[in-house]
Amino acid sequence: MGVVLEDLQDTIRNKEFLKKVVPVEEAVTWIQDGMVLGVSGFALFGEPKFFLQKLAERGKQENFKVDLYTGASMGPSADGAMVESDLIGFRLPYQANPILRKQINKGKVTYIDQHLSQTSESLRQDIIGPIDYAVIEATAITEDGLLIPSGSIGNSPIFIEQAKNIIIEVNLNLPKEYEGIHDIYIPELQGERNPIPMKHPSDRFGEKGIRIDLDKVRGIIISNENDSPSPLFEPNEITQEIANNLLSFLDEEIELGRLTEELAPIQSGVGSVANAVLSGMKHSRFKNIVIASEVIQDGVFDLIEAGVVKFAYATAFSLSEKRVASLKSDLAKHQDKIMLRPQEISNHPEVIRRLGIISFNTAIEIDIYGNVNSTHINGTHIMNGIGGSGDFARNAKISIFVTPSTAKDGKISTIVPFVSHIDHTNHDVDIIVTEYGYVDMRGLAPREIAEQLIENCMHPIYREQARRYFEEAKQVSGGNTPHILHKAHAWHLHFQKHGTMLLDE
Amino acid sequence: MGVVLEDLQDTIRNKEFLKKVVPVEEAVTWIQDGMVLGVSGFALFGEPKFFLQKLAERGKQENFKVDLYTGASMGPSADGAMVESDLIGFRLPYQANPILRKQINKGKVTYIDQHLSQTSESLRQDIIGPIDYAVIEATAITEDGLLIPSGSIGNSPIFIEQAKNIIIEVNLNLPKEYEGIHDIYIPELQGERNPIPMKHPSDRFGEKGIRIDLDKVRGIIISNENDSPSPLFEPNEITQEIANNLLSFLDEEIELGRLTEELAPIQSGVGSVANAVLSGMKHSRFKNIVIASEVIQDGVFDLIEAGVVKFAYATAFSLSEKRVASLKSDLAKHQDKIMLRPQEISNHPEVIRRLGIISFNTAIEIDIYGNVNSTHINGTHIMNGIGGSGDFARNAKISIFVTPSTAKDGKISTIVPFVSHIDHTNHDVDIIVTEYGYVDMRGLAPREIAEQLIENCMHPIYREQARRYFEEAKQVSGGNTPHILHKAHAWHLHFQKHGTMLLDE
Repeated sequence: MGVVLEDLQDTIRNKEFLKKVVPVEEAVTWIQDGMVLGVSGFALFGEPKFFLQKLAERGKQENFKVDLYTGASMGPSADGAMVESDLIGFRLPYQANPILRKQINKGKVTYIDQHLSQTSESLRQDIIGPIDYAVIEATAITEDGLLIPSGSIGNSPIFIEQAKNIIIEVNLNLPKEYEGIHDIYIPELQGERNPIPMKHPSDRFGEKGIRIDLDKVRGIIISNENDSPSPLFEPNEITQEIANNLLSFLDEEIELGRLTEELAPIQSGVGSVANAVLSGMKHSRFKNIVIASEVIQDGVFDLIEAGVVKFAYATAFSLSEKRVASLKSDLAKHQDKIMLRPQEISNHPEVIRRLGIISFNTAIEIDIYGNVNSTHINGTHIMNGIGGSGDFARNAKISIFVTPSTAKDGKISTIVPFVSHIDHTNHDVDIIVTEYGYVDMRGLAPREIAEQLIENCMHPIYREQARRYFEEAKQVSGGNTPHILHKAHAWHLHFQKHGTMLLDE
Repeated sequence: MGVVLEDLQDTIRNKEFLKKVVPVEEAVTWIQDGMVLGVSGFALFGEPKFFLQKLAERGKQENFKVDLYTGASMGPSADGAMVESDLIGFRLPYQANPILRKQINKGKVTYIDQHLSQTSESLRQDIIGPIDYAVIEATAITEDGLLIPSGSIGNSPIFIEQAKNIIIEVNLNLPKEYEGIHDIYIPELQGERNPIPMKHPSDRFGEKGIRIDLDKVRGIIISNENDSPSPLFEPNEITQEIANNLLSFLDEEIELGRLTEELAPIQSGVGSVANAVLSGMKHSRFKNIVIASEVIQDGVFDLIEAGVVKFAYATAFSLSEKRVASLKSDLAKHQDKIMLRPQEISNHPEVIRRLGIISFNTAIEIDIYGNVNSTHINGTHIMNGIGGSGDFARNAKISIFVTPSTAKDGKISTIVPFVSHIDHTNHDVDIIVTEYGYVDMRGLAPREIAEQLIENCMHPIYREQARRYFEEAKQVSGGNTPHILHKAHAWHLHFQKHGTMLLDE
């Protein structure tokens, strides 16, 4: 590496920690078959890249597997190199990797798909773990031994608290300006737990870094890796239309006096619709917006610079190449407007409910009564996982789900009589938006929801067959949510057999 | 009534309120067709019995309907007399009345089945309402104008806060000892909301009654009604076995060091299993138990008297005839051990998560991957509603669902390949208990859950056909949750056609 200890003193500012520096080649040998690793990282930011790559290299030579606990999906080292080396036998709480997904769907990797706020509780309750090694990327170690995380916090605080051993990857190549944007608060054990002392999103109630028990630090390795950029999610015509409809809904809420132009704290997923929504806010009447989300993406920085967003917190950055390049100066400029928190806090039911967050998330399919599938294809094959969508949808002031009305060039209707899998029941869904419009389900009974979803959100080519199903179900079965069980999945089955959900084709 | 104002001074202790007393016959005429009523009551306790009966009598003569908002299901006046007079056009957030259920399932009554913690938020957000009249039963009005509720609090505080007009039914026949057991706390609007200041279940942080805006009080009526007792739910052999299995699970958790003999605050539903569990606790190693639930039933008083329960709070009583008869002296004896709170607090995600509650609720059916249906028969006909089960299951430290393994003399297996309706996804279910055993789903992947549910919880006569489905699904479809969509509801369809889910009969 060519790094000598003297060079590190500005970054590892505590002498006792400095003594712990070891070569990465040594540290990776500590990992044994069957061990549980709690690894920093949430989406693409914050994984201990160098360590995981070296571990993956070792995995190509040796036959061993580990249980991998993370914040969410990971960058190219965990959800790339490690997967390719077939190192993962057990994974939680979320993943988004095509190879790993295949292994999970074959039943070869045990995968626990969890609400992202709950992994920390499972660890405290000894349901999962114990963690043999926490492996955590750091920007710096302070004089008094606080670990300054990098571009995500995720589950790092609880991994560090619960792990038997800690390996710190100090990355010399990260913006030093990460220091100061973190707010680390760890709830006490249930039974002796205090209220989370957040009243307003910008309240700072934690520490600037993660407190570390020096005795548990087995080694510190030094790296020089870059943050991993995310792809650009440019809107297309359909996602732009969805975003427009969503913005119209928010506008309508202002007209009705139920929201002000400051809206309420916004949680948004990542992707083309989310970007189009954020982009649309730039030229809207909305002002002094607060973001209280899982990730801070490009659009949030754009809105801060446009003076539309006044404050944003999340548990991780998710930035394109352009914003990764400017991150150092962006952080310097906006340090008082940006904060990262543990995912246990960003996704905590207590916080989401108290703040009254407006959340929007993406659905894979939705049934005519407003139940949402956000994870499984055909009821069997998992895509990613429920992630934080349940934490937010259940507790949000307004829970919005977006989806294009069709998939596979119109061969699949995303609105179906009966979803093949449910992640969010209609109790937790307020607004559904497609490119055709939106339905405000609040205060509607299931039959009213069905009528409106069919007429306002469904693609027109599917409406007639949906009306037929709904009418027949009312006639034949009746009930609060009329269904004809033997036809409930007929659209899915027709697609499996004929390549389209259009029943007449 | 034969009551003169002088007699009332001990009960209505504020002179300004005393001036508002009117005959019930006058008050019921204020209710117009299409009005929204927010009525006190949760389960059988606390409804304004006299007013509702008189309103129902008027409803027999006149043709009008109202929107009825309540705490949960109601006693014989609302969910009896009013239903029989066909007075209800719209109902939320929960009901359990056979006639009303029929009207809902015919699509004749609009019914919004809500998480019980969320009605208050919907009102604050102007999604439902506005409430024309809050009609609230009271034990007393204090000198400084606090309304002392009776045997439930439910949604009364938010109804009173949000209503345009208030009618108070002062019931002279209730135990005066109700006064002092209530703790009324109303969260602020989202955005300016403080943490709910409860750290321990017995913390008192509210007022002893509900603050009333005198100007909104249109009238006070005087009644002399009795509290309504609930049926006795005696355990049978099967529910006793379920309770034993549940108690074994708790015992095992103590052995594993994950719980102490004080367990964690307990939420339990009502019914035969719940009573058997409470009864079983009397002779267990458990001690210093805290109840933090929706309802306080007979068994809780028994456990207080046995020295096993040290404190209990809920939003309502649900008591048999025997305990209704002794309530006056029970309250006097145990006033420091019993507390009623608004349902927004008892069911609040913030509180449930912070305290780390152990919840147990009843399922109608459960699929092999642990998804729970607790509301709909055959996917179409609603029984009661989700009630508070979602508030507790999502946020509990340990979320337990109980069900006998079969229904209808074995013709229905309550564990099926694919539930016909989902209220609780397997993310929110930890333990499933039947009379055959329990499965601890925590840390298990879906396929592992299926194997264990089939072998440990399912009735033996259904196991072979379940194994066949599961094996075929793994072979033919694969995936994280293997299913064969065209056979997913075959058991339900077989029952519809042949009167049994046993496929070979």
